[in-house]
Amino acid sequence: MSGRISDSTVRRLSLYLRMLRDLERAGVELVSSAELAERAGATSAQVRKDLSLFGSFGKRGRGYLVGPLSDTLEEILGLDHAWKVALVGVGKIGSALLGYRDLSPRGFDVVAAFDVDPSKIGERVFGLSVRSLDELGETVSARGVEIGIVATPPQVAEDVARDLARAGVGAILNFAPVELGSVDGVPVRTVDIVLELEGLSYVLAAARRGAERSREGA
Amino acid sequence: MSGRISDSTVRRLSLYLRMLRDLERAGVELVSSAELAERAGATSAQVRKDLSLFGSFGKRGRGYLVGPLSDTLEEILGLDHAWKVALVGVGKIGSALLGYRDLSPRGFDVVAAFDVDPSKIGERVFGLSVRSLDELGETVSARGVEIGIVATPPQVAEDVARDLARAGVGAILNFAPVELGSVDGVPVRTVDIVLELEGLSYVLAAARRGAERSREGA
Repeated sequence: MSGRISDSTVRRLSLYLRMLRDLERAGVELVSSAELAERAGATSAQVRKDLSLFGSFGKRGRGYLVGPLSDTLEEILGLDHAWKVALVGVGKIGSALLGYRDLSPRGFDVVAAFDVDPSKIGERVFGLSVRSLDELGETVSARGVEIGIVATPPQVAEDVARDLARAGVGAILNFAPVELGSVDGVPVRTVDIVLELEGLSYVLAAARRGAERSREGA
Repeated sequence: MSGRISDSTVRRLSLYLRMLRDLERAGVELVSSAELAERAGATSAQVRKDLSLFGSFGKRGRGYLVGPLSDTLEEILGLDHAWKVALVGVGKIGSALLGYRDLSPRGFDVVAAFDVDPSKIGERVFGLSVRSLDELGETVSARGVEIGIVATPPQVAEDVARDLARAGVGAILNFAPVELGSVDGVPVRTVDIVLELEGLSYVLAAARRGAERSREGA
């Protein structure tokens, strides 16, 4: 396997892996492409195509071997290793992320949190002491932080992402409502809640226009 | 214009609209496809193609008319109207969403919040009184709620989404880490933070494998 696989394939691999881990815990040894497909909202053909990228895990007519496939997907996705994460911006979203219990068991350890607000610096939030943003560079190298999370207001998000990139993180997850794409060569993914709501708003508005048109046509 | 446009086009339209609103506030009347492209992480050709779907807003060689294009995109995206939103699950993520000040000015009014935890019911969270989930159906119809947000644990997310669909919401935004696709014909979008982090983990792991291969090859 060489080269990059697409974001949507990676997304499906994550979903397959979730199911495989559940099956492994339940002691199940074989799973069909149809079962994997259902969990990921894909087709069986898509599952077979996705998994064929990484070698052969199928037993013809019997399904995939849960354990070996799970191990391989963990390795491909880099989840055979716990990543160290630093968060910048301990506001409402930032605090909620610090309290989010699903991150650590899934391999993402938030080891440091930063803010610029003097009233927050030194406070403990879900067990982490909030540091001054001035300590970012030092902390990232001392702790070996690999992923940064930006949870700041949009006006400063790009600057903070650049600070994280310069400090040496390899990837950034951005919660500020600005598209960053990549910053100084470091890939950035944006979780933009308003954009998701606007996507739903479009679907609702389109359905409404459709209903109006069919009333007019009737 | 007829038919559905793709999710990625809708996403770009939202980003164009953000820029157009900023320009409108700044009193700017014309914008080039290159400027719109930059904000949305697209190419000028993509901008021209996207906007040609909705008629002609360009002045040849001079750019797009900010005001009329902004109005049309608002209408297409259904943002000429404030949507009523109900949230289910007032935990960490749910509370953070209730406190998220960007929703209401962007046209999404959270008018009701629900939980099943008796210790939360009746409490006020950012000005909203948390209601019992038993009141969901009644409240959704009385308040005319159009969009539901699921911020519950994953085990109950699908049931809650179904309750929202039955109560009459037209679209759902899901923050629980399960893929719902659509529930009883109601479209669901999922914001899955761990999945986004796993996407970054894949990129980091792939870069690391690449670096190892080139060391071995050297």
